Amino acid sequence: MNWRCDVQNFEPDVKISLTRVGVTNLKKLVRLKRTNKRPIILLSTFEVFVNLPSSQKGIHMSRNPEVIEGIIDEALELESYEMETICEEIVKRLFEKHEYATEAEVFMVSDFMTKEKSPISGKYSQEIHKIMGGAKGIKKDDEIELTKIVGAEVVGITACPCAQNLIKEICIKNLKEKGFSDEDIDKILDSVIFATHNQRGIGRIILEVPTGYDIEIMDIIEIIKKSMSAEIHGILKRADEAYVVEQSHKNPKFVEDCVREMAKRVVEKFKHLPDETKVLIRQINMESIHRHDAFAEKVATLGELRRELLSYE
Amino acid sequence: MNWRCDVQNFEPDVKISLTRVGVTNLKKLVRLKRTNKRPIILLSTFEVFVNLPSSQKGIHMSRNPEVIEGIIDEALELESYEMETICEEIVKRLFEKHEYATEAEVFMVSDFMTKEKSPISGKYSQEIHKIMGGAKGIKKDDEIELTKIVGAEVVGITACPCAQNLIKEICIKNLKEKGFSDEDIDKILDSVIFATHNQRGIGRIILEVPTGYDIEIMDIIEIIKKSMSAEIHGILKRADEAYVVEQSHKNPKFVEDCVREMAKRVVEKFKHLPDETKVLIRQINMESIHRHDAFAEKVATLGELRRELLSYE
Amino acid sequence: MNWRCDVQNFEPDVKISLTRVGVTNLKKLVRLKRTNKRPIILLSTFEVFVNLPSSQKGIHMSRNPEVIEGIIDEALELESYEMETICEEIVKRLFEKHEYATEAEVFMVSDFMTKEKSPISGKYSQEIHKIMGGAKGIKKDDEIELTKIVGAEVVGITACPCAQNLIKEICIKNLKEKGFSDEDIDKILDSVIFATHNQRGIGRIILEVPTGYDIEIMDIIEIIKKSMSAEIHGILKRADEAYVVEQSHKNPKFVEDCVREMAKRVVEKFKHLPDETKVLIRQINMESIHRHDAFAEKVATLGELRRELLSYE
Amino acid sequence: MNWRCDVQNFEPDVKISLTRVGVTNLKKLVRLKRTNKRPIILLSTFEVFVNLPSSQKGIHMSRNPEVIEGIIDEALELESYEMETICEEIVKRLFEKHEYATEAEVFMVSDFMTKEKSPISGKYSQEIHKIMGGAKGIKKDDEIELTKIVGAEVVGITACPCAQNLIKEICIKNLKEKGFSDEDIDKILDSVIFATHNQRGIGRIILEVPTGYDIEIMDIIEIIKKSMSAEIHGILKRADEAYVVEQSHKNPKFVEDCVREMAKRVVEKFKHLPDETKVLIRQINMESIHRHDAFAEKVATLGELRRELLSYE
Repeated sequence: MNWRCDVQNFEPDVKISLTRVGVTNLKKLVRLKRTNKRPIILLSTFEVFVNLPSSQKGIHMSRNPEVIEGIIDEALELESYEMETICEEIVKRLFEKHEYATEAEVFMVSDFMTKEKSPISGKYSQEIHKIMGGAKGIKKDDEIELTKIVGAEVVGITACPCAQNLIKEICIKNLKEKGFSDEDIDKILDSVIFATHNQRGIGRIILEVPTGYDIEIMDIIEIIKKSMSAEIHGILKRADEAYVVEQSHKNPKFVEDCVREMAKRVVEKFKHLPDETKVLIRQINMESIHRHDAFAEKVATLGELRRELLSYE
Repeated sequence: MNWRCDVQNFEPDVKISLTRVGVTNLKKLVRLKRTNKRPIILLSTFEVFVNLPSSQKGIHMSRNPEVIEGIIDEALELESYEMETICEEIVKRLFEKHEYATEAEVFMVSDFMTKEKSPISGKYSQEIHKIMGGAKGIKKDDEIELTKIVGAEVVGITACPCAQNLIKEICIKNLKEKGFSDEDIDKILDSVIFATHNQRGIGRIILEVPTGYDIEIMDIIEIIKKSMSAEIHGILKRADEAYVVEQSHKNPKFVEDCVREMAKRVVEKFKHLPDETKVLIRQINMESIHRHDAFAEKVATLGELRRELLSYE
Repeated sequence: MNWRCDVQNFEPDVKISLTRVGVTNLKKLVRLKRTNKRPIILLSTFEVFVNLPSSQKGIHMSRNPEVIEGIIDEALELESYEMETICEEIVKRLFEKHEYATEAEVFMVSDFMTKEKSPISGKYSQEIHKIMGGAKGIKKDDEIELTKIVGAEVVGITACPCAQNLIKEICIKNLKEKGFSDEDIDKILDSVIFATHNQRGIGRIILEVPTGYDIEIMDIIEIIKKSMSAEIHGILKRADEAYVVEQSHKNPKFVEDCVREMAKRVVEKFKHLPDETKVLIRQINMESIHRHDAFAEKVATLGELRRELLSYE
Repeated sequence: MNWRCDVQNFEPDVKISLTRVGVTNLKKLVRLKRTNKRPIILLSTFEVFVNLPSSQKGIHMSRNPEVIEGIIDEALELESYEMETICEEIVKRLFEKHEYATEAEVFMVSDFMTKEKSPISGKYSQEIHKIMGGAKGIKKDDEIELTKIVGAEVVGITACPCAQNLIKEICIKNLKEKGFSDEDIDKILDSVIFATHNQRGIGRIILEVPTGYDIEIMDIIEIIKKSMSAEIHGILKRADEAYVVEQSHKNPKFVEDCVREMAKRVVEKFKHLPDETKVLIRQINMESIHRHDAFAEKVATLGELRRELLSYE
C-alpha cells in the first residue's frame, strides 16, 4: 500500500524523456539596480523549464516556483543590473535543484518604461516598450554552458510606399488636367506630402548570445524605432503630430523594409557580438486597409547577416 | 448526516439574492435557416444568466448548458432565421427550468461572413464581421416580458482631419516658397490628396428593442461601414487600394465623427423602432501615431437620439 | 479655403452630444508613496473619458494623454498614497482642459504585488493581484462632485459541494458493501476528505464611493481571498499544498456562495461607508469539469446589501 | 521622377533575403465536404508565408489574400475533405504567384464541433475542440516538396497524484486515531475516493508528415482526451458529473504523465506514418492551487519516439 508523496521519484509507467517541463504564466516583481539612479521595477511574466530524463516520473513541480521566488528575492538584494543576469542565476539554481536535468531555460517578458522627448516641442513623456530577457543552460559533465537572450518589442508607424505612388499618379493626372506643366509638377511633387495608408507597426528583435557578452537593451529599442517610417510618442503637441506624419510619409516602408533596416542596424551596432549570435527580427503591421496583419521575419545567425550584407556592397 | 446532492435547494448560510448567475465562455455551433439559400453556420460564444432569490442556495448550474444544448439542437431543426430568436427561446426555457427566477439574459457573439465586392475591380471576397445577438426576459406574475438585442462590430479605416490640415499648411508654405500663386495653390489643393495618419477603426452598434420588432443585421453592418472614412476589403487589387486610400483621405473623420455618423444613420434607418429602443454606439481607433487607442461612445434611447437630431435641423 | 487645424472647435455636421470621448489602452508607470517604506511601483493601464456637448466637433484628443502624463509626472513628486487620488487629480485637470465637459471619468488597472506567508511552512512569497482604481466627476455650475472607485481581482481555489456529496454517496455505498456499520461510517466520514472537482476561481469586488471616504485596498483583497474555498500561494511546500487541498475540500463553495460570502464581509468590513456606496461583486470559476466558466454577480448599493442581510437575521 | 507602383519589383536599398513574408490574422470561412453528411463549416484564422530572396524589394502583399480567397472560394467547389488539402493547394498557388519564392507555408486554426455522448446518461452534446492544419512547400528546381501539418488542442481534467497521496496520509492518520485497524484501513482505502487538486488541462498534439499520408483528425482528438485524468463534457447530468470526478481521481496524472501518455498513444495509433514524422506534444494545466500554469512538452520525430518506447519494453 503506497501513499508516500515522493511519487515523483518513482519510475513512470510510460518511460519517455521530456523536452521541457516547468511553469508558465508566472508573474513576479523584479527590481534592477542602477548606478546613481532609482532602480528599475519590472512586473515580469516568467517561463521556466528543465528537461526530464525518461527515468524520472515528474520533476518536483512545486520546486520551480520556489527556486524562482528565492532567486528573485535574493536578486533584489544582489547588485543585479540586467534581467538576463537574473535569468542566468535561475538557470544555475535549476540545475542545483534538478540534479538529473541537462537543459534549463528561463524567459521573462515585461513592460519597460523610458522617458522620451517629443521631436519638436521637446516635451518629455513616458514610453512603454516590451522587453524580453532569458537564459539557457546546457550541462555537460558538470560544466554548464550558458546562453543569454535579450530582446524588445517596440510600436511605431509605417506608411505604405506602393499606395503612396498610386495616389501620386492620380494627383499628377489631376494636375495635368488643371494644365500644370511637367516642370511645375516636379516642383509640386517636391512641395507636397502625398497620402497613403499608414498603420501601427510592431517591430521585434531578439538576440541570443553566449554568456559574457554585453547587450544594451536601449540599443535594441533604438534600432527598432529607427527602422519604421517614424517613431511615435505619448505626448504629441500639434507640431510634433505634423512632424510624425510628415516623417512617416517621407520615409514610407513595406513590412519587409522594416525587417531589412533592423537587420542592417543590428549588424552595424553589435560589432562586438560573435558570429554564432542567433538573431530573430520581426515586423507586424496592423494594416489600416485590411482586417489582417502584414508580417515579415528574418531568422539567421549574426554571421550569416554579416556575410549577406557584405556580399551586396 | 447529509450527503444528498440537491444541496442546491438548501437555504444558503448567507441569505442574499444574486443579480446574475450562470455560465460564460460557452461555445456552440449555431445554424440559421435561410430561404432558398445555404443555412448560415455560426460558431458562437454564449453567456447565459438568471437572477437568484435569496432563499435559493444555488441554481442547478449543470442545467444551464443542458438548456442551451437542448434548445440549440432543437433550433437546428426549427425554422429559425435569427440568432435573437434562438436567444429568446433560451430565455423562455430558462424560466421553465428555474421556476424561482424573475430575470433571464442570453448573449451570443459570433464571427459572421459576408460576400462583398471590391469598389473598383468588383472582385468578390469574404469579409468577416462580428455580430452579437441576445435576449432578456423579465417575469411578472407568469407574464414574460421579452427584449431582444442585435448588434455588430465592423472594422474600417479612419483618417485624421486635424493632421491632414497641418500637412496641408506645410505644403502650402512649400508651394508659396516655390513661387506658386494663391490661385495656383487653390488648383493644386483641388488636385492633390494630402497625407494624414490613418488607422484601423472598429465601430460597434448594439440595439435593444422589445420583442417583435425586426432588425436586419446587414443594416447595422452597412451603417457602421459607411460611418468611417472608408470601407476596407479582403481583396484589394491595385485600383481598389488606391480608391480606399483616396476615399478615406477625402473623407477624414475624428473618432467622434464616426459615432455621430452612426447615430444619424441609425435614426434614419430604423424609423420603425420605438422610442424606448436602447442604442449603444462606439468607435475605437487604433491610432497609428500613438500606442493608445482613441475612443468615443454614445449611449441613449432612440427617442433621445431623434430629439437631439431634430433640435439641430 | 480652410486649412486651419483647430478643426476641433468647429461645429460638427451631425450635431449630437457624446456620452464618452477619450483614450483607452494607455499604459503609464505610477509610483505610490508609502510612509517608511519603498514606494509602490505600478504599471497601469488607463482609460480616460469626458463627455462632449453637441456643439463641439471634437475634443483636443492629443490633450488627454498630455493631461495624464503631466499629472502622473507631478504625482510622482506629490505625496500621493493612493491610485484613486491620482485619478481624482486627473479628473480635476480634465475639467480644466475641457471647459465644455460636464462629466469626466478615469479608470486604471494594475498588477499589484504583496508579500504573503504560506499557511504551514510560513515561507514568504510574492503574490500578484489585480487592482483597479478610478474617479468620476460631475460638474454642476463650477462645482465638481467627485466619486472614487476602488477594486481588486484575486485568484483562489473553489471546490464543488454538489460533486463532493455525490462522491460521498458512492464511497458510503462501497463502505457498506465492505460491511462497515453506520457508526463506523460516521467515524470514517469524519476522518476522510472526499474528492470533488475544484478549480481556479477569480473573485472581484469594486466599490464606488463619494470622495473623502477611505478604502484600504488590502481589505478588499483579504475579503476576496477569504470568500473562496481556500487561498492559494506562489510557494507551496508539501505541507502547504496538503493544507490548501484539505481546507478547500472542507470548505466547498458554489460560485454563488463566494459572491454571498464577499457581500457579507463587505458589509461587515466597510461600516464607515455610506449607504449610497455602489458595490459590484463577481465570481468566475474556470470549471475543471467543463470548457465553460461558472459565473455569479451581485450589483447593489451598500445600503441594499445591509438591509438584505439584516432582514435574514 | 518615379511614381510607378511596381515599387515591389525594385531592388531594396538593404539587400537581405527574408525568411518569412506574408499575412497573419486572416479569417476565412472554410467548407469541408463529407460523404453522405452535411459539410463541415470552419471559421479559420490563416497565416500564410513565403520566403523572399535578397534581390526582391517586396512581395505583392495584396496578392497573398487574393490567392487564399481564390483558392478557398474554389475549394468550396472542389471535393476537398481536409483542411490540410486546402493548405497544400494554397502552397502550390503561392509558388505560382511568387515565382522567386523557394519556400511557402500555410497554417490554419479553427474551432471544431463534435457530437459526443456523456459517459452515464448517454446524452449527446456539442463539444468544441481546436484543430490546426497546415502545409509547407520547398521548391527545388521546379519540384515542390510538400509537407502537411495536422493537429488539435483539447480540454480535459487532470488530478494531482502527489496532493492526493498527502491527503491519503492525513486521512489514514485520522482513521488510526479513530481506532481503525490496518486491515480496516486497507478496506477503507479501497472504498474511498480521496481529494486532490484538479484543474482544467489543455493537451495539444501536432504532427508534420510528408504529403500523401493520411491522418484522421478525430484520432488525434481521441488520443488527447484519453491521456488526461478524465474527459469532460458539455452536458453532465448528476451521474455523469460523479463519474467524471471519480474517474479523474482514480486516474491522477502529473502534467508530464499526460505528455507521456499522448506520446505512447501516438506511437500506437500512427503505425502507418514514417519515422521522419515530426511530433509536438504539449500539456498545460491551469493549476487550481496556483496562479501560474504547469507545462510539459515533448518534441521529437516519430522515429525517436518509437525507439525510446521500445528501449524500455
